[in-house]
Amino acid sequence: MNASTLTANKPVAIVGAGLVGAGWAIAFARAGLSVRIYDANAEIAAKAIPWAADQLAALHRHGLLDESPDTVIRRLSLAPTLDAALDGVAYVQESVLERVDVKRTLLESIDACADDTVIIGSSSSGIQASLFANDLRISPRVLIAHPVNPPYLVPVVEIVPSTQTSSETIAFTDRLMRGIGQSVVHVKKEIQGFVLNRLQAALLREAWALQRDGIASCEDIDKTVRDGLGWRWSFMGPFETIDLNAPGGVADYARRLGPLYHEIIASRDGDGPWDADWIASVEADRRQHLSADDLASRRDWRDEQLMAFAVQRRHATSK
Amino acid sequence: MNASTLTANKPVAIVGAGLVGAGWAIAFARAGLSVRIYDANAEIAAKAIPWAADQLAALHRHGLLDESPDTVIRRLSLAPTLDAALDGVAYVQESVLERVDVKRTLLESIDACADDTVIIGSSSSGIQASLFANDLRISPRVLIAHPVNPPYLVPVVEIVPSTQTSSETIAFTDRLMRGIGQSVVHVKKEIQGFVLNRLQAALLREAWALQRDGIASCEDIDKTVRDGLGWRWSFMGPFETIDLNAPGGVADYARRLGPLYHEIIASRDGDGPWDADWIASVEADRRQHLSADDLASRRDWRDEQLMAFAVQRRHATSK
Repeated sequence: MNASTLTANKPVAIVGAGLVGAGWAIAFARAGLSVRIYDANAEIAAKAIPWAADQLAALHRHGLLDESPDTVIRRLSLAPTLDAALDGVAYVQESVLERVDVKRTLLESIDACADDTVIIGSSSSGIQASLFANDLRISPRVLIAHPVNPPYLVPVVEIVPSTQTSSETIAFTDRLMRGIGQSVVHVKKEIQGFVLNRLQAALLREAWALQRDGIASCEDIDKTVRDGLGWRWSFMGPFETIDLNAPGGVADYARRLGPLYHEIIASRDGDGPWDADWIASVEADRRQHLSADDLASRRDWRDEQLMAFAVQRRHATSK
Repeated sequence: MNASTLTANKPVAIVGAGLVGAGWAIAFARAGLSVRIYDANAEIAAKAIPWAADQLAALHRHGLLDESPDTVIRRLSLAPTLDAALDGVAYVQESVLERVDVKRTLLESIDACADDTVIIGSSSSGIQASLFANDLRISPRVLIAHPVNPPYLVPVVEIVPSTQTSSETIAFTDRLMRGIGQSVVHVKKEIQGFVLNRLQAALLREAWALQRDGIASCEDIDKTVRDGLGWRWSFMGPFETIDLNAPGGVADYARRLGPLYHEIIASRDGDGPWDADWIASVEADRRQHLSADDLASRRDWRDEQLMAFAVQRRHATSK
């Protein structure tokens, strides 16, 4: 079902118009929805649409936009107040600062002005919704819809209910996200970091320990992923990868490799957090490969690579 | 420098001609080297060249071979004995069973017949060379050269010296591997699982725990990687990813996210190994998405995807 049918032709609202919020605006508008953008900081709000125009031009250049950039941009508008942004919308994507107090204050404001049907998705990347969204009138209609940045390129979105989210809210958000082309992951119980950042945390923990112990440089550790593990993980997940990597599937694999993997994991138990010296060492290692002055241009390179990857993915899945 | 110059036009030998060994044969032959293939099991040896011919045809179909498949196949020959395989070669790639005793026995046989210059790389995916290669005449010329399967598609190779490997052996193997187009990772100290499988172990540990605890299904966990984390990891490693993901680079990122990540990691301390019930649960979950009967055809799909990925990577890096 297309996205406009799902919202009964109502618009959606973006609250918090930084990189994440403005990225969501593109994802919704590209799918044909009208998008109202609001940010309490007028300066940030003012930048959102021009920034989106630049991104849409890049998408168009890569052949990733079915319409003209202008057509999509015309679906975006700035709302002068939160009230105005929320008036008559079907869905709100909240993308304000990742802090419990900031999100709670916003949800109380939304509670005061939202109608009785609007669904609210939070872009929170690790804070559970129950910590800031409970015991309000709107609580059954709030959940986490955590994207990877930028959401108009990387399709995954984690849907995580709070302890008070209704099943209808989950079902609506699932349909809406699939309707705009996202890949929905259902996180069934709240957990700090959800699934995506927990997996990233686990890999980074080992990567940081290998660097600290002088086993390999950051660059060489990066190579094992970008020239090795990442090839499979770019089109299969970790379970499918191992399922195909032993003659009898995943159980066969687990019996063969499980003992080695458990020894590897056990060898890391009790590692402390990244302290200042450890961070300085990783920073120095990275700066040998990329100077601080080049971070911005390398981000542009990354975004170009992501677009090229999206083009390849589109070809691969259309076969 | 091209590979033939590096070996002074000498051939290389593959010892152990299963999937890994036969895959290596393709990687060396494609780079212009003559390759002698030996396996103690004549049936396995007999399958290696026909299998390589099929893979070369697929590479050619995807535009990943600069010559005709026939030209490359003509560089492959079967050796009737280990002696014959090793006669006058510059390099041996050992790809026998992943067991200390099997590898030790083979190295003793190589020690008895190899000349004084041949370098021996082992495909061991986790066993350190010091556990099977030390205290022989050839010991200074043995190291680990661990590929990802198949090595002619996924470029990474981990080079890991034993406690007795010479620096000349490391330098030669580094040049040879780069000469045939591999991406070399230097693992500076021996550690169980090296870098690649340690990173995989860390990610899998968290993935398995999330599945066990009912947080998400295998399929949804896979989606967070293939439609999320894997997009960046397919062209950047984990360090570059986070270096670009905070305004001030990796140190800035570590200060922002480090505490969350440490809490995530600490929450897993003390997890036990995958036991039979746990393995059965993951197996049942996976079999909902892919029946055991379809494992083989899905492996063919995976190899096609890897080739498509290789084509895209070749375009991306030639720009």
